[in-house]
Amino acid sequence: MLSVDLNCDLGEGYGAWQLGHDAALLEIVSSANVACGFHAGDPNIMRDVCRVAAANGVTIGAQVSYHDRVGFGRRFIEIESDDLTNDVIYQIGALSAFASAAGSRVAYVKPHGALYHAVNAHPHQAAAVAAAIRIADSTLAVLCMDDSEFARAAKAEGLHAVREAYADRVYESDGRLRSRRAHGAVIASPDGAIAQARSIVTRRSVNLWNGGTCSVLADSICVHGDTPGAVDLARAVRQGLEDAGVSIEPFVPSGL
Amino acid sequence: MLSVDLNCDLGEGYGAWQLGHDAALLEIVSSANVACGFHAGDPNIMRDVCRVAAANGVTIGAQVSYHDRVGFGRRFIEIESDDLTNDVIYQIGALSAFASAAGSRVAYVKPHGALYHAVNAHPHQAAAVAAAIRIADSTLAVLCMDDSEFARAAKAEGLHAVREAYADRVYESDGRLRSRRAHGAVIASPDGAIAQARSIVTRRSVNLWNGGTCSVLADSICVHGDTPGAVDLARAVRQGLEDAGVSIEPFVPSGL
Amino acid sequence: MLSVDLNCDLGEGYGAWQLGHDAALLEIVSSANVACGFHAGDPNIMRDVCRVAAANGVTIGAQVSYHDRVGFGRRFIEIESDDLTNDVIYQIGALSAFASAAGSRVAYVKPHGALYHAVNAHPHQAAAVAAAIRIADSTLAVLCMDDSEFARAAKAEGLHAVREAYADRVYESDGRLRSRRAHGAVIASPDGAIAQARSIVTRRSVNLWNGGTCSVLADSICVHGDTPGAVDLARAVRQGLEDAGVSIEPFVPSGL
Amino acid sequence: MLSVDLNCDLGEGYGAWQLGHDAALLEIVSSANVACGFHAGDPNIMRDVCRVAAANGVTIGAQVSYHDRVGFGRRFIEIESDDLTNDVIYQIGALSAFASAAGSRVAYVKPHGALYHAVNAHPHQAAAVAAAIRIADSTLAVLCMDDSEFARAAKAEGLHAVREAYADRVYESDGRLRSRRAHGAVIASPDGAIAQARSIVTRRSVNLWNGGTCSVLADSICVHGDTPGAVDLARAVRQGLEDAGVSIEPFVPSGL
Repeated sequence: MLSVDLNCDLGEGYGAWQLGHDAALLEIVSSANVACGFHAGDPNIMRDVCRVAAANGVTIGAQVSYHDRVGFGRRFIEIESDDLTNDVIYQIGALSAFASAAGSRVAYVKPHGALYHAVNAHPHQAAAVAAAIRIADSTLAVLCMDDSEFARAAKAEGLHAVREAYADRVYESDGRLRSRRAHGAVIASPDGAIAQARSIVTRRSVNLWNGGTCSVLADSICVHGDTPGAVDLARAVRQGLEDAGVSIEPFVPSGL
Repeated sequence: MLSVDLNCDLGEGYGAWQLGHDAALLEIVSSANVACGFHAGDPNIMRDVCRVAAANGVTIGAQVSYHDRVGFGRRFIEIESDDLTNDVIYQIGALSAFASAAGSRVAYVKPHGALYHAVNAHPHQAAAVAAAIRIADSTLAVLCMDDSEFARAAKAEGLHAVREAYADRVYESDGRLRSRRAHGAVIASPDGAIAQARSIVTRRSVNLWNGGTCSVLADSICVHGDTPGAVDLARAVRQGLEDAGVSIEPFVPSGL
Repeated sequence: MLSVDLNCDLGEGYGAWQLGHDAALLEIVSSANVACGFHAGDPNIMRDVCRVAAANGVTIGAQVSYHDRVGFGRRFIEIESDDLTNDVIYQIGALSAFASAAGSRVAYVKPHGALYHAVNAHPHQAAAVAAAIRIADSTLAVLCMDDSEFARAAKAEGLHAVREAYADRVYESDGRLRSRRAHGAVIASPDGAIAQARSIVTRRSVNLWNGGTCSVLADSICVHGDTPGAVDLARAVRQGLEDAGVSIEPFVPSGL
Repeated sequence: MLSVDLNCDLGEGYGAWQLGHDAALLEIVSSANVACGFHAGDPNIMRDVCRVAAANGVTIGAQVSYHDRVGFGRRFIEIESDDLTNDVIYQIGALSAFASAAGSRVAYVKPHGALYHAVNAHPHQAAAVAAAIRIADSTLAVLCMDDSEFARAAKAEGLHAVREAYADRVYESDGRLRSRRAHGAVIASPDGAIAQARSIVTRRSVNLWNGGTCSVLADSICVHGDTPGAVDLARAVRQGLEDAGVSIEPFVPSGL
């Protein structure tokens, strides 16, 4: 039987400010990318998200970021490798305490926002993040784009690199994600997202923006949590996959 | 043979700003209260201090604080219990990652600044910090003033409460520390600090400001790291204790 | 003809996080208490709110706070007088640049959250904030509770103290606001808020929680912007006052 | 009689952390680049530096930065133009309140660290900062490198661009500063710095790293405040210029 993981960014509020739909999405996804306080998230939110994730059998991952709260981690920062390595260790450690308090553990790491884009293409930053993960806990998996600098850096550190693809983002002819700023970059219709998710899992390919298809190998499918209709879309993708005989399973088991 | 621990606040720089004398003091003390980024300290500093502490056989403790960097954690904050508990868990977790990366572990917790004073006297905050420590790791020891709210809260949570006394601070007739703002609160002379340290360990008492003595039970002696002459004073206290036949040993062994 | 000011807290988002309904409320109120970045607000938001306020003829005030973003300024901080004075000067200056860029000016100051409560009752903090306002610009008005420490401190600094009352909060028998944590503290129904607003302006009194009435002298009525239905309630209060022949006018004219 | 301005970065401590030698340098320089809280500086420090600057007849400038305290503003950030513009307006406004409180005013702006380097070469960021200055106060001067993107952007906004040169930094054959990371980039000897300062003012040229000379037009000479011996070097440069008949005068008069 086919299975795939569903991952989503969660815990991205801050203090009095709410963002996204943590409780609802924690009933849908199998892996939670939990913000660690550098771009979003605070100790209260981290504790709550870890508790609910653990209760729901959702695997906990550290969604690590540049230290840029007002920019929500969306701005590239030209940071020294050692500084970046230590920033990532700090975040993994902080989240680990809450995961552990909930009877679970941090099982993987996924960079957020501008750092995600940077490690896909920027060898020094990719190496710095991969080193941080190995130093913090060499059993941690890494959630990354296939054929990226980050995937290579993770493997060079001996880490388990887990490939992800997107249900709700359009792919360009080179296999990369179409820029969010470009027309038509986002698949907003549940039917479209279901079709792409099924294609990724069952045919190991996606339709491209300019026509044609491209092979995609993915162990996890990312759904977004902060868009209008995010919950409905995520639920539809899950149901659509299950209706096609695909079970939703975390790529690393939840819990200890 | 008599022994006592020497503890000191360390890792209290931030970014480009330096404070104290971490490297020198890590050759003198047996326990390092390492700042965790809420009042001072950053990931680079935490990594460095943990590495040197581990290399020197110095036990690592989490020096947890209110979240108040510009105030250096010196201002009382009327914070909700859950918020404080989660802030402390976060700090312990972040430091644990660096201690672990250095082949060591966080072995104890000591509140910093205004939080230290608050937990001595404020039952709700004392309980919130003690709960955080038990939740993060119930094997952590707690460094605290004898006969304080915090000592009672730690014991109520089943934690090992380690009593500390001060070599370089004057005690009032009620057994409390004389306020830093008051005349004569600090013992600046090495001979004075040596005498008080020896008295604490060998006679289990201190001389009081107004004359007379008071019994003091302490497993650890705190020396300050941020005053002029701090290194010389700490070295003198250590040498003075060793000359009196007292060995300097961490109250919890360093390492795993 | 009777007139009164309507004031509301605005600009309380931060980075990617939104809060409240700035655009809608800037079409209803006559005075905008604009967050200055210490508890909420960032430069982008401050610029936008000032621009719309100026365009709509809404008077701009500085909503100053303790420096506590994760706590949204809702936690009392035991801060030294000089530190508080300088924090408030900083905030007034920052907002002034945006008000001026919009062709307007900061015309008054209103403390936020825990600082608002502190200056009502705490003479040192009240004096520190009043001193800051006088130092920053002695022509600034001060929005405050009648018969408060802050009103007295403002007058002692030669500032113009403007009294405010609440349309949507219940008053206790001593004339103070009923604690938000207490049952029945908030008037959620538009009719109730309209009735109280009319009573404040036309009869200079409010009905008390325990029955009876209390005289209230107010030049401004505060409506809240961050509750569900806040916009509808504010609009209802404005319309209800206008229907009773009360015009809505800022207590200090907008603009230069 | 020849004259030139001496400028220096000041007010770069934060909270409990000190940096540099503000009081001593404020007796030597004619223009103070005062940190505004985004990379360094806090309200207390800003107030103190402005007070002493005003008392000493030193002109006050806003040393504006990316929002990056832990990185001390030394890391390039790929920030949107509007975000950068508003960050700069905020900083100018905050400092203006303290300058005004001291009976003086902000007379010019100088970007700090990575932003300084970015605006020399990066047209979008140069334009964003120049726009901010014009919006905040179009009478503000701009301290910049000659023939830089920032100088051009400032002129395009109608601002007065003041050229600066360095007494203690070596110039490459292309007229740019030798990278601080390269061997021999800094002139540490007072005699060397005096010679270069005199050459800049009296011969309008500097000796280059690879031999030869390059013409330099500068209305201000920058001396550094954060290096060991900074005060002695700055004092030597001032004395050396005065001994050569050059008077030290701010390029914009201090005060109102």
